[in-house]
Amino acid sequence: MKRIPDCRWLLLALLLLNGPTQAQALASWNDSAPRQALQRFVAEVTQTDSPQFVPVAQRIAVFDNDGTLWSEQPAYFQVLFAFDEIRRMAPAHPQWKTTQPFQAVLENDQQALAAAGTDGLMKIIAATHTGMSSEDFAQRVRAWFDRARHPKSGKPYNEMIYQPMLELMDYLREQEFKVYIVSGGDSAFMRTFTEQVYGVPPEQVIGSAFVTEYRLVDGQPTLLRLARLARNDDGPGKPESIDAIIGRRPLLAFGNSDGDLQMLQWTAAGQGPRFMGLVHHTDARREWAYDRQSHVGRLDKALDEARQRGWTVVDMARDWTQVFAFDNPPKEPTR
Amino acid sequence: MKRIPDCRWLLLALLLLNGPTQAQALASWNDSAPRQALQRFVAEVTQTDSPQFVPVAQRIAVFDNDGTLWSEQPAYFQVLFAFDEIRRMAPAHPQWKTTQPFQAVLENDQQALAAAGTDGLMKIIAATHTGMSSEDFAQRVRAWFDRARHPKSGKPYNEMIYQPMLELMDYLREQEFKVYIVSGGDSAFMRTFTEQVYGVPPEQVIGSAFVTEYRLVDGQPTLLRLARLARNDDGPGKPESIDAIIGRRPLLAFGNSDGDLQMLQWTAAGQGPRFMGLVHHTDARREWAYDRQSHVGRLDKALDEARQRGWTVVDMARDWTQVFAFDNPPKEPTR
Repeated sequence: MKRIPDCRWLLLALLLLNGPTQAQALASWNDSAPRQALQRFVAEVTQTDSPQFVPVAQRIAVFDNDGTLWSEQPAYFQVLFAFDEIRRMAPAHPQWKTTQPFQAVLENDQQALAAAGTDGLMKIIAATHTGMSSEDFAQRVRAWFDRARHPKSGKPYNEMIYQPMLELMDYLREQEFKVYIVSGGDSAFMRTFTEQVYGVPPEQVIGSAFVTEYRLVDGQPTLLRLARLARNDDGPGKPESIDAIIGRRPLLAFGNSDGDLQMLQWTAAGQGPRFMGLVHHTDARREWAYDRQSHVGRLDKALDEARQRGWTVVDMARDWTQVFAFDNPPKEPTR
Repeated sequence: MKRIPDCRWLLLALLLLNGPTQAQALASWNDSAPRQALQRFVAEVTQTDSPQFVPVAQRIAVFDNDGTLWSEQPAYFQVLFAFDEIRRMAPAHPQWKTTQPFQAVLENDQQALAAAGTDGLMKIIAATHTGMSSEDFAQRVRAWFDRARHPKSGKPYNEMIYQPMLELMDYLREQEFKVYIVSGGDSAFMRTFTEQVYGVPPEQVIGSAFVTEYRLVDGQPTLLRLARLARNDDGPGKPESIDAIIGRRPLLAFGNSDGDLQMLQWTAAGQGPRFMGLVHHTDARREWAYDRQSHVGRLDKALDEARQRGWTVVDMARDWTQVFAFDNPPKEPTR
């Protein structure tokens, strides 16, 4: 039921919405090259008198999640969830005590875990992510978020998010961009927190996915998660998913690793202005510093390509006044 | 660039937006049971003082396409597109003159085509829908829409749409529903016209899909469509896709055939009020009349289940004052 609002109230609301927001946009970003590039780009595509103006419907922005919107150290948080689930589920699976790779998780045996490799990890993921309904899985993830704490910060995992990236998503939404997450993580895992934490609704979350099977269980429609990947949303899988699910080429794409390279290339290959950004983890003090040698979120080829092609590389230490909302911002901007 | 509008202009705009629209909602629907059920349901979930009020973010509506939003006789329009493409492409494929099922299409040999069955049809679909980039495919579909005409009406295919269903989608959007198409048709095929014709943007179109492969061709990122199905968005595939891509259960679902049954069941199984609707093709005069025996859009099990469970069945002849926008509406409502 729409009502016609009182005129003065409406004008006040518009003033409040437009006035202070502009001034506070990207408040945790230093006034260095990345913020300037973002603001220049957004002005270019949103100002109606700009030769590069882009209609609202085409303003699609895509963001990787792990290492781009939240941390991914000491390991992808979804993997830490899977390990915690193995421990929680162990009493019902006594054979896990003597079966790899489960034994390695239960004994915290890093060497055996490394030896189990990708196949071992996939077994752990399958045991904790499949063989249940989509609703049961979401409930388990939510319960985990409620109790789990990050090993370094002691904070709930969904506070390990980058305040400057939250501000960037807000800034884009104010300019009527539609903000998507396009991540290698499991869509169903991410959807339990993306709306509350990032303001990104479930239907704007694209991730890797397991095949689900529709079944009537006691007459009740159920979607059962099977241990078979429907989609691997990493590397070339990212533009493939964007084309399949969004059906439009993004105007702006942000990532942090080589797994985002093809998404950035696909974005860059569109006509007219496009914005390609990389978060470079350079801040061992407030977060972590890693790139070419890292096993998690390796940034090597994409860093070279970004520098060659003039994409924006965000140096966390230099370009952000704070990393997490729970940080105290430094008293003076670092430059 | 947001500007603060002049107050009087704004009030006028709000009056214009709210005033006449309410009166004209569902103008091509008779005041029979389906319209009343729709209006009752929408009021129930959108009025803020309703005990069944549903927040805007959760107002998801899903519509099948073929036979629900536009006609599907004498054959699915996408199949007619494929046949036309075979004819158009034939000069470059001389072997098709003597190879089934292509020969059957070129000679308009219905018997041979029927003998080729589903496998034959899939070969025709593969030859016309894959082996090219997603952009090239979209261009071919658009070119076809420009020149092709429906064999019965002589109208462009994208005018073979049901005016009452357009009004229903408008009515739902006015009530801040997010309207999706969930169809067995190819997403990329539908996306060439859904925005212009239905006001449904590409990212709200879910259909069957071929696997695409990201490749750099002469340094240009290209998404190549492969002859392998990634998703069959029919029957149980519909709730599976809805869960995978939207990640929420719809509030309202509309279909017209047994291929929509699981989508309706999945919708019905949600908590709180839900609306399940079927378009029943009963109008041989203005459109077609078919249901349980039809090879296209067979409506049998879903019709029984709808009647048992009290879902809304729209009788086209009885409940719609006009079918197509190009129809002359009858001088008096039929009841």
